[in-house]
Amino acid sequence: MNRQAIEQAFTRFRERFPHFIRRTPLWKLPGAALGVSCDEVWLKLEHLQAAGSFKARGMLNRLLSHDIPDAGVIVASGGNAGIATAAAARELGVRCEVFVPTVSSPAKQAKLRELGAEVVVTGAAYAEALQACLSRQRETGALLTHAYDQPEVVTGAGTLAQEIEMQGGGVPASVLVSVGGGGLIAGIASWFEDRTRVVALEPQLAPTLHKARAAGEPVDVEVGGIAADSLGAKRIGQLAWDLTQRHVRDALLLPDTAIRDAQIWLWKHMKIAVEPAAALPLAALHSRAWTPAREETPCLVICGANVDPATLA
Amino acid sequence: MNRQAIEQAFTRFRERFPHFIRRTPLWKLPGAALGVSCDEVWLKLEHLQAAGSFKARGMLNRLLSHDIPDAGVIVASGGNAGIATAAAARELGVRCEVFVPTVSSPAKQAKLRELGAEVVVTGAAYAEALQACLSRQRETGALLTHAYDQPEVVTGAGTLAQEIEMQGGGVPASVLVSVGGGGLIAGIASWFEDRTRVVALEPQLAPTLHKARAAGEPVDVEVGGIAADSLGAKRIGQLAWDLTQRHVRDALLLPDTAIRDAQIWLWKHMKIAVEPAAALPLAALHSRAWTPAREETPCLVICGANVDPATLA
Repeated sequence: MNRQAIEQAFTRFRERFPHFIRRTPLWKLPGAALGVSCDEVWLKLEHLQAAGSFKARGMLNRLLSHDIPDAGVIVASGGNAGIATAAAARELGVRCEVFVPTVSSPAKQAKLRELGAEVVVTGAAYAEALQACLSRQRETGALLTHAYDQPEVVTGAGTLAQEIEMQGGGVPASVLVSVGGGGLIAGIASWFEDRTRVVALEPQLAPTLHKARAAGEPVDVEVGGIAADSLGAKRIGQLAWDLTQRHVRDALLLPDTAIRDAQIWLWKHMKIAVEPAAALPLAALHSRAWTPAREETPCLVICGANVDPATLA
Repeated sequence: MNRQAIEQAFTRFRERFPHFIRRTPLWKLPGAALGVSCDEVWLKLEHLQAAGSFKARGMLNRLLSHDIPDAGVIVASGGNAGIATAAAARELGVRCEVFVPTVSSPAKQAKLRELGAEVVVTGAAYAEALQACLSRQRETGALLTHAYDQPEVVTGAGTLAQEIEMQGGGVPASVLVSVGGGGLIAGIASWFEDRTRVVALEPQLAPTLHKARAAGEPVDVEVGGIAADSLGAKRIGQLAWDLTQRHVRDALLLPDTAIRDAQIWLWKHMKIAVEPAAALPLAALHSRAWTPAREETPCLVICGANVDPATLA
């Protein structure tokens, strides 16, 4: 993982997969349009990415970095990582098995099947689905994708940061990013290194990075709350841990009420329909957990739209 | 209404109201990303405009073009025109009265009130609410805004076309636009004149321009169907009639099924949440009512997002 690897992934996406990996809009707005006191804010509308989140970048990059066996690819995830893996596998015309626990919603299972994946519903919780997935992988030799803790996945996510810099014509003063397992922030920190201030944002109820910092190393945490669906990793990834230790000074916790308010605000005032995880950057500004100086432009990464739109009403 | 008036409105928006009238993203995508066979498609994401539709441009321009009396502004509309008028009035700090019929939804009335408007609910149908509005206007002398048939409203809408040309770095081969009363297409035709092919799109069930062309002049039509909420004007505006006669060759009708399919496609595959009226351009491409040549880039105007998100599920 380094800037050169990200540039290579970016070029490969652009040359061979422009119809799949989208160059999502970077929207520059006066802060006042977002109810924020700084002069300008950038919104990176990555929720418009293929498969509805930034994860398509990492999953496609993982698949492109390996010869894929006849058994195809395999993943344990009922969320964005599973959807992105299935979409990337379909794009490449390879088989895809997705393991999800029995608690995952029938709507998500249907979505995975629509993308051509074979869905295996097993185990009461995610951990059990994961065990079944790993056991199956040893049997078939399928290529495993991990939601966040693989170098190619992090490098793929880093292409988002390169794109922000290209579209913005420079580096924003800060980049506000939601953290679950940390794949996105790891990619962004890999690209920007210390050239901007990358700000890590977590729900109070899913504080993987926060607790790791308190303990001095990645530890398991209890996760729950409104954004658990996509930010509910139990532990920060090792890659994200290393990269955030090097490049990320600020790690902030946000209450679910602020996250929900920002999610509703984005729909009501901006007509941007997103999942709770994508609302943390605006929540940080609106709740004043993060207050940029007037002339310091923050970039808010709007990371995913896998939301039941009925919940926005 | 001419290019110079549009440029003046555009400059005024940019200099004095950058926090209100947004420069919405122009998103260039490979046609394949949208399931379309031409090389490139532009999406003008105007549903992200203030108050959720292009109408904010016209209404603010109307209000800026007049001294506003103490009685404020007045409008008869339960839809986007009413919302945009209320939002523009709030921006300028002037009173706003909105007349809506008793059939208009409590949710829309609540939204108007939230924007600070005084909402008058009267009459079984729109025509009666309009009569009451006009009568009240004569009494108070408030400034009346019309949803589409006023020169300043058309000129304001034209700023959208200027913005497309600036952002795109040139003129697209065609611009696909939904037509109700015709304010949007009139503004777009005013800007582009004959420099591009402006394509008028109407629901089969709300064919104001189509019937006017058949009759040789604007005529009242029956309106209904999925997009009636925003495209349900009974008659094409006189300004739109004149301008489309001069500059618009193609006027196409689309069935509600194609419109609904495109609306759902935009949410499902692009995470763009819009009202039916905004889906006509994609519906025209998907249904092959309009088939651009491979090298001819069409620009799809995504005009509004005033939709109950629950209807997208």
